[in-house]
Amino acid sequence: MMTPRNGGGSPAVEWTLTLPGQRVHLGTQRPLTLDCGVALSDFPVAYQMYGRMNPSRSNVILVCHALTGDQFVAETHPITGKPGWWAALVGSGLPLDTDRYCILCINVLGGCMGSAGPSEINPDTGEPWGLGFPVITIADMVRAQAMVLDHLGIEQLFAVIGGSMGGMQVLEWASLYPHRVFAAVPIAATAQHSAQNIAFHEVGRQAIMADPDWCGGDYWRYDKNPHRGLAVARMAAHITYLSEHKLTEKFGRQLQERSAVTYGFDADFQVESYLRYQGISFVERFDANSYLYITRAMDYFDMAARHGGVLANAFVDTRVRFCVISFTSDWLYPTVESRRIVKALNAVAADVSFAEIASNNGHDAFLLEEPEFRRVLSGFLDAAAAHRGLPPVRGS
Amino acid sequence: MMTPRNGGGSPAVEWTLTLPGQRVHLGTQRPLTLDCGVALSDFPVAYQMYGRMNPSRSNVILVCHALTGDQFVAETHPITGKPGWWAALVGSGLPLDTDRYCILCINVLGGCMGSAGPSEINPDTGEPWGLGFPVITIADMVRAQAMVLDHLGIEQLFAVIGGSMGGMQVLEWASLYPHRVFAAVPIAATAQHSAQNIAFHEVGRQAIMADPDWCGGDYWRYDKNPHRGLAVARMAAHITYLSEHKLTEKFGRQLQERSAVTYGFDADFQVESYLRYQGISFVERFDANSYLYITRAMDYFDMAARHGGVLANAFVDTRVRFCVISFTSDWLYPTVESRRIVKALNAVAADVSFAEIASNNGHDAFLLEEPEFRRVLSGFLDAAAAHRGLPPVRGS
Repeated sequence: MMTPRNGGGSPAVEWTLTLPGQRVHLGTQRPLTLDCGVALSDFPVAYQMYGRMNPSRSNVILVCHALTGDQFVAETHPITGKPGWWAALVGSGLPLDTDRYCILCINVLGGCMGSAGPSEINPDTGEPWGLGFPVITIADMVRAQAMVLDHLGIEQLFAVIGGSMGGMQVLEWASLYPHRVFAAVPIAATAQHSAQNIAFHEVGRQAIMADPDWCGGDYWRYDKNPHRGLAVARMAAHITYLSEHKLTEKFGRQLQERSAVTYGFDADFQVESYLRYQGISFVERFDANSYLYITRAMDYFDMAARHGGVLANAFVDTRVRFCVISFTSDWLYPTVESRRIVKALNAVAADVSFAEIASNNGHDAFLLEEPEFRRVLSGFLDAAAAHRGLPPVRGS
Repeated sequence: MMTPRNGGGSPAVEWTLTLPGQRVHLGTQRPLTLDCGVALSDFPVAYQMYGRMNPSRSNVILVCHALTGDQFVAETHPITGKPGWWAALVGSGLPLDTDRYCILCINVLGGCMGSAGPSEINPDTGEPWGLGFPVITIADMVRAQAMVLDHLGIEQLFAVIGGSMGGMQVLEWASLYPHRVFAAVPIAATAQHSAQNIAFHEVGRQAIMADPDWCGGDYWRYDKNPHRGLAVARMAAHITYLSEHKLTEKFGRQLQERSAVTYGFDADFQVESYLRYQGISFVERFDANSYLYITRAMDYFDMAARHGGVLANAFVDTRVRFCVISFTSDWLYPTVESRRIVKALNAVAADVSFAEIASNNGHDAFLLEEPEFRRVLSGFLDAAAAHRGLPPVRGS
């Protein structure tokens, strides 16, 4: 388990130098032109693979990670030492079966686990980008991922799957590269960030930027790290990931290792202690500027707006098979947002199935043990694999 | 319009010296024993009155203010220069008719508009209390208010009315002093702070305490003011005061004085600009330590817990007439919380009416122009006044 330095140079750059997994430099011959107009040349992208590609490279599932996720889907995380964030779903005999599929996950552009982002080195200056890094969009993330596929010689993904911001990338994949996607599974996602979604992100950004150790984004230069602001940002966001029901069930008003309130400002309640821990542990593995960039990309996400205000226009004539999944208690991207996606897909006569999973786990349900979710995902993938002509696992 | 100094001494103490309205020193003969066990002697409480008491002093309505409210209910606020927070409801010819009733509002204990709180002077040291101020509860606030009634010679309130934290005080009034309350109107309230409620408050407190200018609560000593942390706290809380529907209707994804996103971290979206303004304007009139104390009092609020786990026990044999009001889109203290209060009152055969007002304005509906709310409040007060034998307004 690595411990990133707290301040001093750019901690994220330091830890990425020794990360396991693959890292490729893209844009060396032709730059990636971002939505903001900047052309990005010679930039790193880090990824991780589980399972093997078949000879025709037709069995690849791209897993797109969420805001604070990364490419370490199904293995011990190199910084936290915790299991991969989808270890329950990705592996031998699991729904994303590594005996059948090759699972690929790419650290998003703007991230801090090896892909180009504000904490990586700007080749023009030899220093970390900081706020000099161009503001990116979800589509930019997907374009960079497509360049990784080119590098790996993968013409078409069998499936692209992701929850939350991962689901936004799934939608962009199906829209930007419909011929490179056989099946698409956007989970607990939305096609457009709402005013409330933007508002919560703005609180997080303001918390980071209010921390004097942020230093206008140049904290690496001053041997600082705005960990307090980032922790507050994480705490605020974390509340939106859980349902009110779940918080009540899990914590209620239970006290933290005491029999009565202390009439003070320590964490009297378990929910306070839990939230503080979420904040403190997050800053060990995440870069504050990356948090700004990725939340911004999510806020800018509005697929309909880029298609004349009509979401269906993003998917005209699509041959992608969709499985849209939402969770009943998700109030961050509630079922109504998934229904909007389904309606748009219906309007272009797309092949789409939709499942609303009954769960009390809120938005985070897609990361947790949810038997019905697992069954839906397995069933859809098995059927799609049969259509695609992928052989079943030997012996099964 | 006064401008509080930003840092330097205790700004709140400075501005309270020149505030309009009344200020009384209580506990000079017998101290107030707080729930935490501390005895508070010789402490100030500030209040404001609108309308006149009748000779029998039976026409007084106590209005209890919310977390960030104060006693300036129905007049230009001395610091912000804005109208009183309930100017639409309190005044001549309005539902809380100052031609008929005498409206009293008392700055809560722990507040920063003249009542004893962390920014006031500790008589034992001659310096601001800071975190030396005892942690108070909603019941403590109500006990201090009862001392003000004693001082004013008011035996029984005609009514006690309040929204949000004001509604918590209303419930405590009816429970602690049933014989001193004729009618009680808890609005958009709850009898118990939930895990999610506590979580949002904890984010706000952590934002304040993460600000280095908080100085462990002693900012007044170092000529500082944790205005950045307090602004973030306010922003996070403010989201919970509005419904998702209202945010979408009011702002949606509309841009702030620009025709396209800027690919930067300025406030591209109107909702961002709005939230930033909410944060910035709040710190001009509120004390960061008061925010800690009052949110803590709300988190500790759990009426059932103090009555053997049964909420109804708080109201046994009550003769108070209740009107419980909630708003459909309030997700901070949703209707289900008001229903719990109503059920408890039903269980003791109390005289209770309940109105759920259809509104898209979220929790803040109680502060806004809501015709149905106004009608319900007027109707209940008129009927209660008739029962109490208060003469109608002359000429009406």
